[in-house]
Amino acid sequence: MSKRIEIPTPYRGVITPMVTPLLDEETIDTAGLTRLVNHLIEGGVHGIFVLGTSGEAPSLSYKLKHELIERTCDIVHQRIPVLVGISDSSLAESISLAKFSEKNNASTVVATPPFYFGLNRQELIRYYQKLADQLPLPLFLYNLPAQTKVMIEASTVQTLASHPNIIGIKDSSGNAPHFNTLLHLLQEQKETFSVFAGPDEMLSTAVLMGGHGGVNSGSNLYPKLFVELYHASVNGDMNRVLSLQKEVMQMSVGIYQLGDTGASFLKGLKAAMSVAGLCDDLMLSPLMPFESEKKSVIKI
Amino acid sequence: MSKRIEIPTPYRGVITPMVTPLLDEETIDTAGLTRLVNHLIEGGVHGIFVLGTSGEAPSLSYKLKHELIERTCDIVHQRIPVLVGISDSSLAESISLAKFSEKNNASTVVATPPFYFGLNRQELIRYYQKLADQLPLPLFLYNLPAQTKVMIEASTVQTLASHPNIIGIKDSSGNAPHFNTLLHLLQEQKETFSVFAGPDEMLSTAVLMGGHGGVNSGSNLYPKLFVELYHASVNGDMNRVLSLQKEVMQMSVGIYQLGDTGASFLKGLKAAMSVAGLCDDLMLSPLMPFESEKKSVIKI
Amino acid sequence: MSKRIEIPTPYRGVITPMVTPLLDEETIDTAGLTRLVNHLIEGGVHGIFVLGTSGEAPSLSYKLKHELIERTCDIVHQRIPVLVGISDSSLAESISLAKFSEKNNASTVVATPPFYFGLNRQELIRYYQKLADQLPLPLFLYNLPAQTKVMIEASTVQTLASHPNIIGIKDSSGNAPHFNTLLHLLQEQKETFSVFAGPDEMLSTAVLMGGHGGVNSGSNLYPKLFVELYHASVNGDMNRVLSLQKEVMQMSVGIYQLGDTGASFLKGLKAAMSVAGLCDDLMLSPLMPFESEKKSVIKI
Amino acid sequence: MSKRIEIPTPYRGVITPMVTPLLDEETIDTAGLTRLVNHLIEGGVHGIFVLGTSGEAPSLSYKLKHELIERTCDIVHQRIPVLVGISDSSLAESISLAKFSEKNNASTVVATPPFYFGLNRQELIRYYQKLADQLPLPLFLYNLPAQTKVMIEASTVQTLASHPNIIGIKDSSGNAPHFNTLLHLLQEQKETFSVFAGPDEMLSTAVLMGGHGGVNSGSNLYPKLFVELYHASVNGDMNRVLSLQKEVMQMSVGIYQLGDTGASFLKGLKAAMSVAGLCDDLMLSPLMPFESEKKSVIKI
Repeated sequence: MSKRIEIPTPYRGVITPMVTPLLDEETIDTAGLTRLVNHLIEGGVHGIFVLGTSGEAPSLSYKLKHELIERTCDIVHQRIPVLVGISDSSLAESISLAKFSEKNNASTVVATPPFYFGLNRQELIRYYQKLADQLPLPLFLYNLPAQTKVMIEASTVQTLASHPNIIGIKDSSGNAPHFNTLLHLLQEQKETFSVFAGPDEMLSTAVLMGGHGGVNSGSNLYPKLFVELYHASVNGDMNRVLSLQKEVMQMSVGIYQLGDTGASFLKGLKAAMSVAGLCDDLMLSPLMPFESEKKSVIKI
Repeated sequence: MSKRIEIPTPYRGVITPMVTPLLDEETIDTAGLTRLVNHLIEGGVHGIFVLGTSGEAPSLSYKLKHELIERTCDIVHQRIPVLVGISDSSLAESISLAKFSEKNNASTVVATPPFYFGLNRQELIRYYQKLADQLPLPLFLYNLPAQTKVMIEASTVQTLASHPNIIGIKDSSGNAPHFNTLLHLLQEQKETFSVFAGPDEMLSTAVLMGGHGGVNSGSNLYPKLFVELYHASVNGDMNRVLSLQKEVMQMSVGIYQLGDTGASFLKGLKAAMSVAGLCDDLMLSPLMPFESEKKSVIKI
Repeated sequence: MSKRIEIPTPYRGVITPMVTPLLDEETIDTAGLTRLVNHLIEGGVHGIFVLGTSGEAPSLSYKLKHELIERTCDIVHQRIPVLVGISDSSLAESISLAKFSEKNNASTVVATPPFYFGLNRQELIRYYQKLADQLPLPLFLYNLPAQTKVMIEASTVQTLASHPNIIGIKDSSGNAPHFNTLLHLLQEQKETFSVFAGPDEMLSTAVLMGGHGGVNSGSNLYPKLFVELYHASVNGDMNRVLSLQKEVMQMSVGIYQLGDTGASFLKGLKAAMSVAGLCDDLMLSPLMPFESEKKSVIKI
Repeated sequence: MSKRIEIPTPYRGVITPMVTPLLDEETIDTAGLTRLVNHLIEGGVHGIFVLGTSGEAPSLSYKLKHELIERTCDIVHQRIPVLVGISDSSLAESISLAKFSEKNNASTVVATPPFYFGLNRQELIRYYQKLADQLPLPLFLYNLPAQTKVMIEASTVQTLASHPNIIGIKDSSGNAPHFNTLLHLLQEQKETFSVFAGPDEMLSTAVLMGGHGGVNSGSNLYPKLFVELYHASVNGDMNRVLSLQKEVMQMSVGIYQLGDTGASFLKGLKAAMSVAGLCDDLMLSPLMPFESEKKSVIKI
C-alpha cells in the first residue's frame, strides 16, 4: 500500500462528494466505481469525498461503508486525496470509522454535527473538540442544516478553527450572508483553515469572495466543468465565469430541481449519471430513484 | 433462556422508555440497570422499551446497544415484555439489530422513520413496509417529529396498520388534533393495532379518548404514578385522574422544563434519577448533564 | 343601543369564531350574517368571536372590519357576548379597532402577538402589557403559532395573567403538553382567568382536564354538537363524550382535512356552510374556495 | 408638485430601504427625515424605498404611513425614484396605499406575499396577478421568507415576470442557489425585469453574477460604500470589490449580528444611526431598541 497523501495546507479546489455505485442494496458496483473514480481524476478534481450525502452515507450499513472506503482508496491509489464522511449520531462509531479510514490511507475525515438531539452552542463545540481530539486524521466540519437541522454558526466555526486537528469546513447551508460572515471571521486563518462551499450554484461566488473551493455534487457528472469554473473564479476571469456558470445552472435546473423532496438533487444526479453510462441509478432505502417518466426529461 | 413473552393483542398500559444507566461512556452500569429494571417491574409497568430517545439510543455504539439488549433481557427475564428501539438511518442496520433482539427474546421492536433525507409519503410507506417484511419481530411505528423532522401523518398510519407485522404506534408528536385523528381513523382496528401516546402530560387524555396507553419517560422515576393514572383513566375516574395528573404536571414543570434545548426533558430526568439514587446522571456525547446549579433545583 | 353584556368571570363554554359571510369582496352578506348569528344563538353557544382566523380577519379592509363589527353587534343585540379580534402588526391600529368595538358594545377583544418581526420573550410581554394598558375592553390572548410563527409559552401567559385587563387565552397551538402546562401553571387563577382551547378535536379533553371551554370553528356549522360536547365534558359523562367526539372527528376528517394548505380547514368549513345553506363560500384574496370537485365530497 | 420620475427599464443600482425617523410613537421626525434623505441622495443611491422591513412598516399606523409617504416624496422632490412598500394581509389596503403613493408621485410599489395564511403556488400567483392588475404604479415583488414564512420560488417569479405591471423583485432570502436560479430563469427578461438582492453581504456577488443591484439596509448609514461596491462589481474590479466587501462585513458583524432575534439587524442599524447623529433610535412597538450596554459596543 502506498503512502498517504497529506492534505495540502490550505486545501483548495474542487472536491467531488462521490455518489455510491451499487449493483444491489448489498453490493458495490466495483466496475462502476473504477470507471467513476477515473472519470473524476481525469477530470482534474482535487479530492474525492466518499460517504457524504451524495454518497447516501446514512443509508449504508457499516459493512458497505468499510467496503467502499477500502475499494475507493485502492482504486484512487494516492493519485489525489480521499476524504471520508464519518458523520454519525454516535461519537464512538465516528471514531471507529475514522480509524478504519486511516488504516486505508484516506487523507482526512468529514463530520456533520450529530443529527438527532437538538444541541446548544456549548454542546456543539464540546462535541467537535472531543471528536477532533481522538481522531487519527484531520477533520473537516460539515454544515448541512437542511438535513441535520443543526446550523453551525460562523462564530462557532471561528472557535473550532483554533483546534489543531480541525482544518476546514464544507458549508452546504447555501446561505450567502452566513458564508460571507464565515470568510470574514476566518480571514486571519485562511492559510491554515479551508472554507469550501457546498452548493454547486455558488462555487464561483464562493471562490471570487475568497473561499478555497467547492464540494460539488455536479462534479460527479461534469468534473471538468467545475474544475474550469474554479480556475476561472480564482483568476477573476468574469467572462469565463459567467459562461461556465450558465452551464452549471442549466444542470441545476435540468437535473437537480425536478423532484419534490430534499433528496431530489440526488435522485436527479443519479438518474443523469445512469443516462451518461457512469453507473446505475439504484438508490438505497429509504430513497427511491426517479420513475422513467421523470428520468426521460434529463438531457446531459 | 426462558421463552419469549408474546405481546398481548392489543397491547395496553404503561411502557417505560428506559434511560440507559452508564458507568462511563463505554460501560453499562449493571448494578444500576438491575436496580432500575426491578424498580419498574415492581412499579407495575407493562413493558420496558430500551434504546428509545430517553435511552440515548442514537448516541450508543452498536457494541453498547448489543450489551444493553442482552443484559436488559436477562434481568427482565420475561417478567414483562421488552421492546427494542431499532431506529437507524440504515435499513440494514435496523434489521440486524432486530435479529439480535429476537435472539435475546425481546418481544417487539420500535422504529422511527429514517432521520436524514426528507421523504415523501410514498417513500415513507415503502420504507416501513420493506422493514416490516424483513423483521423477525412485530414492529411499532414511532412518530417523533421534534427529533426526526418527519411527521407520520394519521392517514399514513392507517395505511401501514394493515401490514400484518405492524402492530402499533408510539406517537410522541404531542399534537392533540393529530392524535385524535389517529384514534378516529384506526377505531376499526383497535383490537389489533395499539395507539400509545408519548408525552407524559397527555397519558390521561390519550387513554380517556380511547388510546391504549402511554410510553412515558416519567415512569422511569415514578412507575406507580403512571400506572395508577393509566388505570384511573381507563376507569373514567375523573377525580382520581385530575389528582394524579397534578402530580405528573409537577414533575413536568419541575424536572422536564428546566433547560433550553430539545433534550432538556432527558437531562432533567437523568438528574432526577440520580437525586433519587436510581442511577448516575452521566450522559453520552453530544449531550451534557445539567450543572450542579440546575440539578440542585430538582425536588423529587 | 342596549347596554353591554359583561363577560362572566371566569368565562366558560363554547365560543364560535364566526366566518364572515360575503356577497362579494367588498360587501357583507347581511342576510347570511343574520341567519348565521341566529343559528349560533339558537344552538346555544356562549359567545361570538368576529374577526378571528375563521373570519378571514387579516384579509378584510378596515372598512369591512368596521361594518362587520357594527352589524354583528346590532344583530346579536346583547343576547350573548361579542368578542372582536384586533390582531394587527400595528399596535395603534389594534387599539383603534378596540375603541370602535367598545363603542359598538362588544364585550371583549382578542389579539395574537404581532406577526412579522420575531420577538423575544421580553418584547412579547411588553407588547401585551402596553396593549392591555390602553384598551377600553378586557383582552384575551390568542396563541396561534401555525399562522403567527410566535409561540406564547405557558410561563409567559402566567406572567401576563396578573395584568388586570387580561382575562383569558384562546390557545390554538394544538400542543397537548403545552396546554396541560398552561392549565397547571394557571390553576390558582382559574376563577379569574379563562383558558380556552382552539382546535375542535381537543375541546373535550381540554374541558375534562380543567379548561374553561373551546373556541371552535366547527360550531359555525354544528353549534349544538359543540355545546353538548362541552356540557358532557364538564359533567365527566365519558360515554356521551366519546359518542359526540366521534361526530366531531367525522367533521374534522370529512371537512377540515381535504386540502393541502394551512387554510384548508377554513376552505372546507366555508364549503360545508354553503352546502348547508348558511352562507356563500366566497373567500377573500389571497384564499380561493374549493373547486366544485372537492366541494362535492363534503357531506353534512 | 413636480412630475413623477419613471423607473428606468431595467432598474439598476443601490436602493435604500429607509429607516423611519421618529420623535415618538406617533410623530415622524421631520428634521431627521430631511437629514437622512439628503444624506442618501448625496451618497448617490439610486432609489429610496420607504415602508419596508427596515422602515418598520408593519408597526406603523395607516396615518403614519400616509404622513411618511407624503413627506418623503416632498423632500426627495423627484431627485431619485421613491419606492413604497404596500405589503399587507389585506389586498384592499395594499391597493389603497398604492393609490395614495401614486397621488404623491412615488415611482413604484413593493409587496411581499400576504403573511398570515399559508398559500399554495396557485394562490400566490393569483394574488400577485390580481394585485398587479389593479395597481396604478408598477410592482416589485418582495421575497422575505424569514419574516413572511412564504418563499416565492424562482419558477413562480418567472411566471409573474410576464405580467406587464410587474417589473422586478427584491429577493431577501439570502439563499445563494435560489438567487442564482432566479438569475438563470430570468436571463431572457433581464432588459425588462430587475433582480435585486436584499442582504447587504451579497450585494457584490449578486451584481457580479448578473443581478441588477441591491436593496441594502446598510446604505442608510454608508450610502457611498454601497454605491461604490455596486460600481466595482459592475466593472468586475475584484480588488476593489474585496476591499469594499471587507468594510461591509465589518459593519455586518459589528452592527447587525449583536442581538438574538430576527430584528437584531434593524436594532443594530438604528442604534448605529443614532450614534452617527442621523436620527434617534426610537423603535415602534413591538420592537425595543438596544440597551445602552449593547449600543456602546457599536463603532461607526
